[in-house]
Amino acid sequence: MQRRIILGLGVIFSAFFCSAFGQQTDSAFLRRLSMDVMNSAAAYENLKFLCKKIGPRLSGSPQAQEAVLVSQKMLKAAGADTVYLQPLKVPHWVRGGREQAELRQANGKKIALAICALGNSVGTGQKGITAPVIQVQTMAELEQLGAATIKGKIVFFNGGMNPAHIQTFNAYAETGVFRRTGAAKAARLGAVAVVVRSLASNPTNFPHTGVTSYNDSFPKIPAVAISTNDADKLSRLLMQKIASELFLKTTCAMLPDETSFNVVGEWRGTVFPEKIITVGGHLDSWDLAEGAHDDGAGVVQSIEVIRALKATAYKPRHTLRAVLFMNEENGGAGAKKYLELAVQNKEQHLFALESDAGGFTPRGFSIDAADSMVAKLAVHVPLLLPYGVYEIKKGGSGADVGPLKTIGAVTAGLRPDSQRYFDVHHAATDVFETVSRRELQLGAFNMAALIYLVDQYGL
Amino acid sequence: MQRRIILGLGVIFSAFFCSAFGQQTDSAFLRRLSMDVMNSAAAYENLKFLCKKIGPRLSGSPQAQEAVLVSQKMLKAAGADTVYLQPLKVPHWVRGGREQAELRQANGKKIALAICALGNSVGTGQKGITAPVIQVQTMAELEQLGAATIKGKIVFFNGGMNPAHIQTFNAYAETGVFRRTGAAKAARLGAVAVVVRSLASNPTNFPHTGVTSYNDSFPKIPAVAISTNDADKLSRLLMQKIASELFLKTTCAMLPDETSFNVVGEWRGTVFPEKIITVGGHLDSWDLAEGAHDDGAGVVQSIEVIRALKATAYKPRHTLRAVLFMNEENGGAGAKKYLELAVQNKEQHLFALESDAGGFTPRGFSIDAADSMVAKLAVHVPLLLPYGVYEIKKGGSGADVGPLKTIGAVTAGLRPDSQRYFDVHHAATDVFETVSRRELQLGAFNMAALIYLVDQYGL
Repeated sequence: MQRRIILGLGVIFSAFFCSAFGQQTDSAFLRRLSMDVMNSAAAYENLKFLCKKIGPRLSGSPQAQEAVLVSQKMLKAAGADTVYLQPLKVPHWVRGGREQAELRQANGKKIALAICALGNSVGTGQKGITAPVIQVQTMAELEQLGAATIKGKIVFFNGGMNPAHIQTFNAYAETGVFRRTGAAKAARLGAVAVVVRSLASNPTNFPHTGVTSYNDSFPKIPAVAISTNDADKLSRLLMQKIASELFLKTTCAMLPDETSFNVVGEWRGTVFPEKIITVGGHLDSWDLAEGAHDDGAGVVQSIEVIRALKATAYKPRHTLRAVLFMNEENGGAGAKKYLELAVQNKEQHLFALESDAGGFTPRGFSIDAADSMVAKLAVHVPLLLPYGVYEIKKGGSGADVGPLKTIGAVTAGLRPDSQRYFDVHHAATDVFETVSRRELQLGAFNMAALIYLVDQYGL
Repeated sequence: MQRRIILGLGVIFSAFFCSAFGQQTDSAFLRRLSMDVMNSAAAYENLKFLCKKIGPRLSGSPQAQEAVLVSQKMLKAAGADTVYLQPLKVPHWVRGGREQAELRQANGKKIALAICALGNSVGTGQKGITAPVIQVQTMAELEQLGAATIKGKIVFFNGGMNPAHIQTFNAYAETGVFRRTGAAKAARLGAVAVVVRSLASNPTNFPHTGVTSYNDSFPKIPAVAISTNDADKLSRLLMQKIASELFLKTTCAMLPDETSFNVVGEWRGTVFPEKIITVGGHLDSWDLAEGAHDDGAGVVQSIEVIRALKATAYKPRHTLRAVLFMNEENGGAGAKKYLELAVQNKEQHLFALESDAGGFTPRGFSIDAADSMVAKLAVHVPLLLPYGVYEIKKGGSGADVGPLKTIGAVTAGLRPDSQRYFDVHHAATDVFETVSRRELQLGAFNMAALIYLVDQYGL
């Protein structure tokens, strides 16, 4: 009986504090939420499962399909009201057999180099391609050399990521042009293949893959990434001025499209059920590793947002959705389908948050919206500061939630520390062991916190 | 000739900008400094040498002596004017041979457990110790049980670090009481040995060592750390209520003191050579691993401050010193000696910065000084924000520079992200491979930046 009176007083006090001390109530709620997340093994164990039991999850692969099934179960276990699939067509690119690169010098020496085909690239065929190599550092250099020099050659793009960019994504955006467009640009000048220096922040023996795009007006030529260490080696070898040719062999190929799925876990809102808040990451991952940081982390963090808010007995005002997108890496079919269905179903999308920058310690959020909206969200920073988030600023959101901007959603991206991302990104090193449990959890907590604040205060 | 005119104009412009746009000049200088640090392999290669060529560097060990010699060379290579040694006496504790722990149940079962002796602990002797175990979670529980229960037993302190502390050092401070004082407190009640749950943030099979302190009024009893996984296992086994005894064997011992050294690299100031700014870390490290984060990182970052400022042709106004302290881990003799000599030589110490919280991505600095002084330093935050430092706030500095407060220095500590520190701290996992090159460099840059700003603007 006494307990009931105390509880009754509790309710009255809560109501008082809610109105009078909103910040304090939020702060106390976030503290409870953080305790739940930091004490829970759920996100880390889910990531372990995706990485160790399933492994690489490239679109169209059996593992990607398995990830669809498994993540449905994870969302149900997390407490989503309804979990459903959005069917879609995805490209099905396969790497094929052993990949080979060898500089063959006129003196008979053969020097093996560590390469991997770029995603969506055509293969060389079983016989391989053998041709002279020409090294360029910039696109301007390529254009200057022109078709007369490039025709019949393998172009070696050796421009490296600039270590002086403190935000490594800036270096990636800058230097990524070679990987994304190098094959198309070199093909226009008659090149027979391209070798692209890996987008890695630090010297490494591992090549880093990632998608390359062709230009339909020109031939599709094989495109490979070379490890940064072997890019340096190749560069040194070419400077020796010994006549040489590069042998490349890849048997990658694009197979017919497959059916795959976005996985959606929904938790219906209690006040504005028609208004949707999305949090997501992508299920697919490159085939060389386990897709731990890219983007297993984003997947399990998005699931964790639902689990943790549910565990604290929260009742969302808006409808919350954890969306696990398919095919972010080599096509973006999942993002297109999610938008298409949102339009078709006349859904109202308030806010969408993506985690696709690695499971590292969180530093902030970037918001793709007008300055006034960014400022509105930035008022929440003091509540997040004890948890390592000190910045909510204007910037991109992510490839999967970004398109929702066209139907009026404010889109956002988690911004973890970026120093280690390009050690592992798209390489064989992107494995579970490189993810810190606490960093992953802290990211998930801050995502849940921002979702909670948007849910509470709207936009 | 034209070039000379342009350079001449450059000087005039610089002077103008210096007075009119101090912030802008600082910002440009810091940009240059960051480019140097982020492009230089020096710090990372120095760390690799300390970790891989020398290895564990516990005070009194041959490796610690080797580190003294090697780091002198590193400081000279970095460009210090003078490099000298400060001789001092250090304790020489050795782990001895294979360590063993086994729960022996009355049913004949023997269950091996992963343990390691705590630093400065006495050993059990070759015969080992066998006694019943009693588990406690708190010091209060130990006191409640009292001598009647504790006498003749091995006390198992199973209190774990609280994952809900976002700053893991707060959890360390809280739970560290068992490691630091558990042996002394249990000995007072007649215990024959203690087993302390490792101070690790996450489940692990590796025991984490660290120093324990005895109380001279009571017997020195053997003290060991147990891995968190085996602490859980031992706890479960004890709950089975099968009669059991724990067998412990350690042959660690304290040998006679050795002579060792602080290593000091000095760069004489051009305006106030009598006023000293110190930046430092500690050379010694626990014997189980390579002391990569603790505190190889701090050592090479301190050297890097000199190297990078020198590389940008900077002329320090005050005298800068990179100090590599000896014996932080199990005695603090280096810190005492540095203070003692400072007093003896009537040195004026303006500012001292320590890096001893791991080579992780930097988040801020904590300053051990009056609020007004902290506020004065915090005005520099906008200059550091592009490099990930968003907080200069009141707090502790470090075990090595802390004592300089008594002679008027403002002391400070680098505050890197703390999420991963207690994965490796004092354990066999503290190896070179766990240090991110860019994180290490970014820490070093921010240290150099703060030193530059203090040197420019004083306190």
